[in-house]
Amino acid sequence: MFESAELGHKIDKKTYRKAVPELRAALLDAQYDLKENGKIPVVVLVSGQDGAGKGETINVLYEWMDPRFLSTLAFSAATDEERDRPFMWRYWRALPPKGRIGIFAGSWYSMPIHERIEGLMSKSALDQRIDQINRFEAMLVNEGAIVLKFWFHLTKEGQKKRLRDLEKDPRTAWRVTKWNWERLKTYDKLQDVAGHILRMTNTPWAPWIVVEGADDRYRSLTVGKILLDSLKAKLANTDQQATPVAPPVHPNIDGRDVISELDLSRRISAKDYDTELARWQGKLSELVRDPRFKERSLICVFEGADAAGKGGAIRRIGAAMDARQYQIVPIAAPTEEERAQPYLWRFWRHMPRKGRVSIFDRSWYGRVLVERVEGFCAEADWLRAYSEINDFEHELAGAGAVVIKFWLQISREEQLKRFKEREKIEFKRFKITEEDWRNREKWDAYHRAICDMVERTSTGIVPWTLVEANDKNYARVKVLKTICQRLETALKNKE
Amino acid sequence: MFESAELGHKIDKKTYRKAVPELRAALLDAQYDLKENGKIPVVVLVSGQDGAGKGETINVLYEWMDPRFLSTLAFSAATDEERDRPFMWRYWRALPPKGRIGIFAGSWYSMPIHERIEGLMSKSALDQRIDQINRFEAMLVNEGAIVLKFWFHLTKEGQKKRLRDLEKDPRTAWRVTKWNWERLKTYDKLQDVAGHILRMTNTPWAPWIVVEGADDRYRSLTVGKILLDSLKAKLANTDQQATPVAPPVHPNIDGRDVISELDLSRRISAKDYDTELARWQGKLSELVRDPRFKERSLICVFEGADAAGKGGAIRRIGAAMDARQYQIVPIAAPTEEERAQPYLWRFWRHMPRKGRVSIFDRSWYGRVLVERVEGFCAEADWLRAYSEINDFEHELAGAGAVVIKFWLQISREEQLKRFKEREKIEFKRFKITEEDWRNREKWDAYHRAICDMVERTSTGIVPWTLVEANDKNYARVKVLKTICQRLETALKNKE
Repeated sequence: MFESAELGHKIDKKTYRKAVPELRAALLDAQYDLKENGKIPVVVLVSGQDGAGKGETINVLYEWMDPRFLSTLAFSAATDEERDRPFMWRYWRALPPKGRIGIFAGSWYSMPIHERIEGLMSKSALDQRIDQINRFEAMLVNEGAIVLKFWFHLTKEGQKKRLRDLEKDPRTAWRVTKWNWERLKTYDKLQDVAGHILRMTNTPWAPWIVVEGADDRYRSLTVGKILLDSLKAKLANTDQQATPVAPPVHPNIDGRDVISELDLSRRISAKDYDTELARWQGKLSELVRDPRFKERSLICVFEGADAAGKGGAIRRIGAAMDARQYQIVPIAAPTEEERAQPYLWRFWRHMPRKGRVSIFDRSWYGRVLVERVEGFCAEADWLRAYSEINDFEHELAGAGAVVIKFWLQISREEQLKRFKEREKIEFKRFKITEEDWRNREKWDAYHRAICDMVERTSTGIVPWTLVEANDKNYARVKVLKTICQRLETALKNKE
Repeated sequence: MFESAELGHKIDKKTYRKAVPELRAALLDAQYDLKENGKIPVVVLVSGQDGAGKGETINVLYEWMDPRFLSTLAFSAATDEERDRPFMWRYWRALPPKGRIGIFAGSWYSMPIHERIEGLMSKSALDQRIDQINRFEAMLVNEGAIVLKFWFHLTKEGQKKRLRDLEKDPRTAWRVTKWNWERLKTYDKLQDVAGHILRMTNTPWAPWIVVEGADDRYRSLTVGKILLDSLKAKLANTDQQATPVAPPVHPNIDGRDVISELDLSRRISAKDYDTELARWQGKLSELVRDPRFKERSLICVFEGADAAGKGGAIRRIGAAMDARQYQIVPIAAPTEEERAQPYLWRFWRHMPRKGRVSIFDRSWYGRVLVERVEGFCAEADWLRAYSEINDFEHELAGAGAVVIKFWLQISREEQLKRFKEREKIEFKRFKITEEDWRNREKWDAYHRAICDMVERTSTGIVPWTLVEANDKNYARVKVLKTICQRLETALKNKE
């Protein structure tokens, strides 16, 4: 991994002076094209050994490029808002929007490397994290990002020399702390840990670029040229699909599926409804005030056809909680800032802190439902969304969130009945639009999309709950009961 | 203040049952219109005594309206990200976008009331805060917001009774804590403090609405009707200007002004430039690493005509700092999410934490420069912007930020020369656009806008620094030197 970065690469002053002006002009042009193109975010990871030139490299990039469209993201101790959410949340919120370059001084690799060296992370936890990182980076690349992961390497002797040189110069002496010298003692350990992690995350879509850090000119030119080449290559072909696409989904040959097997005649009597509603609302109100819930969070996802009763079910949940504890997130078309980010970014920003609840009225499943059926995104994009969503939900669950997903199913006849009823009601918010009627025409296409969705994203930890919703009251009680039972189980099994 | 809320207002069951369905339908319709209209944010403050029905009122609103377009904002202890920024930052970030209703359970009034009761805030600090709040609310109203401030009142006996009633009911007993009973002891003190604060913030644009809290039905109906009336009135006349507008600015009769008095022939020799640049960059690099800077932050604002050299000056500042410590914020057209908020919101979101630096390449002054000259906003809007900006900058300075504003001035001939030079350069980012030439035609209109801006927003704490920028090097040194001197003085005078 590191051998080719121990050859003593050097660039002499004359060559450097000759190469820089041209490189700089080309980088500025590429940066301008990137901004104009507006489709590609650039993620540059600057990592490696202390004294190997991480800071210097960032400075050189700022000197060569237009600093107004660069951001440097530094990650010191997590803030309490970050600690109360999944590990990746702080990196998601720092992602550069399309058209910009984000330089990560410290990244999702810093913590695993540090914790592994200090013996704070088990081998298996590390393997999980590595797997998660690989999938995260694949998602970024599939979303059109350039991901460049630089690792600056020094030999042990080289590192000692660099630290001494930095200390000698009064302008840089402040950068060398006791901690850096301490770290030198663990050089071999870092090599082991980093070697392992780099090897396991050296994927075809986001390979590591190991650069010898001893010579400033060599390092700067190398980074500049790689950045330039990557920008040019990507800008020349922005539609290129980075990873191969999963095969299309096939319906069952006997025509039976989880949706058509639902017994939509299920009902509850008015009397039982009152009792059950009060019972489960009372229960839910207790559960979210349970001291153990302070270390968990609750995420409820509602999907279903138009008029399936999502809103009504959500109100019954809200009524059991203090308005200060939960938020309802209605999902409509993404905003401009959201469109400049990977697909899941707009959901990450609404993830609840510990002790809080987020209820999604429609969700990230839009990708594999409306976007698939209406052709709003390419087949390759919705096909890869299944595993991206699974990764996303498992990340949430792994951080202590209880994620509960409901599909509310009504029959085509029931929907027609409700549409007609709504047309009679005078509340403006219940007006039926042309679009509602249009969606209804695509019932079969949606049916297939729903089956595929359940098939591919109902997992052991985050299963789908299919709700027979022709009877609104039955659906509401089932929803409340499911939430209470899932939450209660989760609070008992504290992780 | 509270007398009319001690009359024992009551609504009987029958009247209530009759009134609610109609009110509810009307509220839903108004909420729908609000959403469609998309121009008005609604800020509802729910405050008052413990047990006076704050939580119940929020629940009723959720029951009556569409909860998907309501948000409840609760403010418990500030997070560390919030504590590291000015007092109002957490409220700015919580503001509802246009078309939505934000219910503030706790608000900018909670801390002053609490701290005043506990004796943690001086009378004069409170007066300052009150003044700030009044100006903040005026800004919200001028930006088109509806601001409804509810105070739920109970007599001392009434409060005791409510707490006892809540404790008796097992469904609500959990809400009464020892702390509530403790607070009862300070009833008179709260009355005093709240009475004073309510009186001082009882402005024509955002008056307090004191509601008797003892009877649930009376309280709910009152709040619902006031909310409905406010929504309807505002929706009927969205262009209404809430506060009278300041008179237009007049140029000096002798034609002399701060800009034309600048000596643009000022220059620095190449040799002196090298020395001075190194000197002040070195100094700046020390200052931002000074331990005392950990409790301050630095905000640099750059304004100036096209090609005045803002970018070059900013690079020279950046070069003196670690890229992890500062961010450059280039101000372009606002995004969709930013347009849904008050004008200053998009700048608040970039305010640095303590120990950090934000450099603005163009800024909030666009309001009184380009937006004024191009007619992008109404005269009334840019006229009120002067004092809103002063309030904003004083809020930042009051929280420990060092705010330094530069106007880079070049002559009309110098600009032409630079435009022509740029047209020869091959870097794409330096291309001169039609717009640059068009702006140039408006030189005189800009000139007047700049003079007004300096006149009205150069304050003792946050003065403008006018920079003679025909010689780029001279300008860069002046900028760096000014930053160092201001920062050094600030660090000496720790507050």
